[in-house]
Amino acid sequence: MKATIYISLKNGVLDPQGKAIENALGQLGFEGVDNVRQGKMIELDLADTDAADARNRLEAMCEKLLANTVIENFEIHLNDAE
Amino acid sequence: MKATIYISLKNGVLDPQGKAIENALGQLGFEGVDNVRQGKMIELDLADTDAADARNRLEAMCEKLLANTVIENFEIHLNDAE
Repeated sequence: MKATIYISLKNGVLDPQGKAIENALGQLGFEGVDNVRQGKMIELDLADTDAADARNRLEAMCEKLLANTVIENFEIHLNDAE
Repeated sequence: MKATIYISLKNGVLDPQGKAIENALGQLGFEGVDNVRQGKMIELDLADTDAADARNRLEAMCEKLLANTVIENFEIHLNDAE
């Protein structure tokens, strides 16, 4: 089963990387770009066949390793196609 | 208009960061995790009101700054809700 995890900074947490992108876009002449936030996307294959199990395991992975839940939110998407 | 850009490594491009995550998950006891790939997600607000214009501008931003199109693919999602 394929899964994608989206990890983004919580609202209110400063995002210097996003700010740098915003400034760079401005310097390149792209106007009207605002509130740039950079996050992470992690794609992976899981051996699980049960969607609920897979989701539980992915949540545990996010909490233990992938996301810093103090400052980051995560969102899990399962592609059950397989 | 809000937009999200997903940037991922092309197939065949080595992803040492993904590999590191895969190994770390294995060491934490998460089994059956494979093909971990790490990508980026960029969220931003655009002043554009026309979806086609916005998409063109975002493509230009990806090609000029946000993505390295030699080794990365990008995918643009517009949230027209606003």
